[in-house]
Amino acid sequence: MELLQRIRIVMINTSDSGNIGAAARAMKTMGVSDLVLVAPKEFPTAKATARASGAADLLHQARVVETLDEAIADCQMVFGTSARMRTIPWPLMSPREATQLVLNEPEGADIAVVFGREDAGLNNEELRRCHYHICIPGNEAYSVLNVAAAVQVICYEMRMAALSQAAASSGQAQASDKPVMPLEITDWDEPLVSAEDMERFMKHFEETLLDIGFFDPNNPKQLMTRARRLFMRTRMDRLEMNLMRGVLSTVQKRIKENDR
Amino acid sequence: MELLQRIRIVMINTSDSGNIGAAARAMKTMGVSDLVLVAPKEFPTAKATARASGAADLLHQARVVETLDEAIADCQMVFGTSARMRTIPWPLMSPREATQLVLNEPEGADIAVVFGREDAGLNNEELRRCHYHICIPGNEAYSVLNVAAAVQVICYEMRMAALSQAAASSGQAQASDKPVMPLEITDWDEPLVSAEDMERFMKHFEETLLDIGFFDPNNPKQLMTRARRLFMRTRMDRLEMNLMRGVLSTVQKRIKENDR
Repeated sequence: MELLQRIRIVMINTSDSGNIGAAARAMKTMGVSDLVLVAPKEFPTAKATARASGAADLLHQARVVETLDEAIADCQMVFGTSARMRTIPWPLMSPREATQLVLNEPEGADIAVVFGREDAGLNNEELRRCHYHICIPGNEAYSVLNVAAAVQVICYEMRMAALSQAAASSGQAQASDKPVMPLEITDWDEPLVSAEDMERFMKHFEETLLDIGFFDPNNPKQLMTRARRLFMRTRMDRLEMNLMRGVLSTVQKRIKENDR
Repeated sequence: MELLQRIRIVMINTSDSGNIGAAARAMKTMGVSDLVLVAPKEFPTAKATARASGAADLLHQARVVETLDEAIADCQMVFGTSARMRTIPWPLMSPREATQLVLNEPEGADIAVVFGREDAGLNNEELRRCHYHICIPGNEAYSVLNVAAAVQVICYEMRMAALSQAAASSGQAQASDKPVMPLEITDWDEPLVSAEDMERFMKHFEETLLDIGFFDPNNPKQLMTRARRLFMRTRMDRLEMNLMRGVLSTVQKRIKENDR
C-alpha cells in the first residue's frame, strides 16, 4: 500500500539494540519499511538481528545518521511520540487521530514518526522539530511503553488506516452479501456459561453420540470440530445449557434402558 | 476502567521468558493486569523481570497453570489469536472488531485472549476452545508479530474501546459510536440453511424430544422457544444441519428399536 511506503520510522539514541531489532520486526509485520537511526548507542549487533527475526532486511537497509535534522530533512510531515509535552502545549493527538491527518496528506508526501530514548524520550528541542505530537493513551499509573511496542502500535494504526482507505477506494466496503451473524447480546436474561461448563457440555455431547452409535465413519474428528464450532458460537446461557444437557441425559437414559 | 479489569491475557508454552516480561509491560501500560501463563518453558526469570520494567508486579501476580482449560475455566468469552485457521473456518475478526463484541458483553463477563507459542502459535485443539479468533491484519510478506507486540496491540485496542465507552457514558461522544456488531463470516465453507430448512429442523428437534419423553413439565412452550432462540442464532450451515439431523434421526431410530 502506497501510504505505508511513505512512512518513515526514526529512532533517536536508542541504547538497547534489541529494541531496534524489535522495532524493525514491528514495522515489517505492518508493511512499513523505512527505518532511520539517529546516533544509536550500538548498531549493528547480533542482538538486533535476532530480535528482528524475519525483518533482518529492514536492518540492513536502515540508514544511520548523526542528527534528527538529517533524518527528517525530506519529510513533509513529522510526528513526535511523547508521553507528555514539557514546555508549551503543542498539537497533541492519539495515534488514531494522527492517521486521519495522514490520510488527508497529498499523495507523495513523506511522513516521519520520531521515537525517543528508552529512558528519557524526546527532548524539548526534538519535540519542537515536529509538526504534531502523538501520545498513546496509557495507564496513568504506568504509561511508559517499550519503544518497539510503541512502534508496533503506531505502525498498526497506520496499517489499519491504509487498509480502510484501500477498501473505500475499491468500493467493496459497506453492504456486503456475506452471511452475517447477529451477536449483540443486550439485556440477556440468563448468565452465559463459562468455558469450563462449555467443555463439560461438549464432552457430554460426544458421549451421547457414542452411546447412540452415531459417528461420521469418514471423519469422526471433523464431526466433533464442526459440532464444537456450532455450539461455541451460540454463547450459550445457563438455562439453555441445562435444557440441552437435559436432552442429552434423557437420550442416554433411554438408550441404556434399551440395552438392558 | 471496569472493562479492562475483566480482560485476561493467557500465554501458552512461552519459550522466551523475555517475552513474558515484555507482555506484562504491554498489559500494564494499557491498564490490563490479569496474566495467566500455561506451562511456560522458563518462569520466573531475571530476564522476564528486566523486560517487564515497571510492570514487575504483574509478573508476581501472574498465575501459572498446566492447561489451557484451567486458564480459561471461569471465562465467559474466549478469543484465540491466530495468523490463520487451519482446518475449518471459525468466526474470525480483527482486533478492532473484537472490541465491538467485548463492549456488547454483559457486565461482569470475564474475557480471555489466548496467545500461542513464539514459533507455532496455537494448535488446532486450542483454537477450537475459543469462541472467536482474532487476526491482526499483517503484511502478507511477513505477518508474524512478536507475541508481546501482539499483546500490546490487543491491549491497546481494548483500552481505546474502554476509553470511548467511558467517553460515551459521560456524554461526550456521539451516539454513532455505540457498538452494533453483526459479525461477518468471511470465507465460510458451506452455504447457510434457508428459513424453511430451519423450520424443518426445529420440527425434527421437537419430535425427537417427544419421542424420548423429554419436556419441561412446568412450561413446555418456553422450552421450545428457548431451543429455537439457541439454534436460530447459530445461523447454521448445511453441513452442520445435516450433522444435527443425523444425530436426531439416530436417536429416534434407537428409541424405536427400544419400543419394538
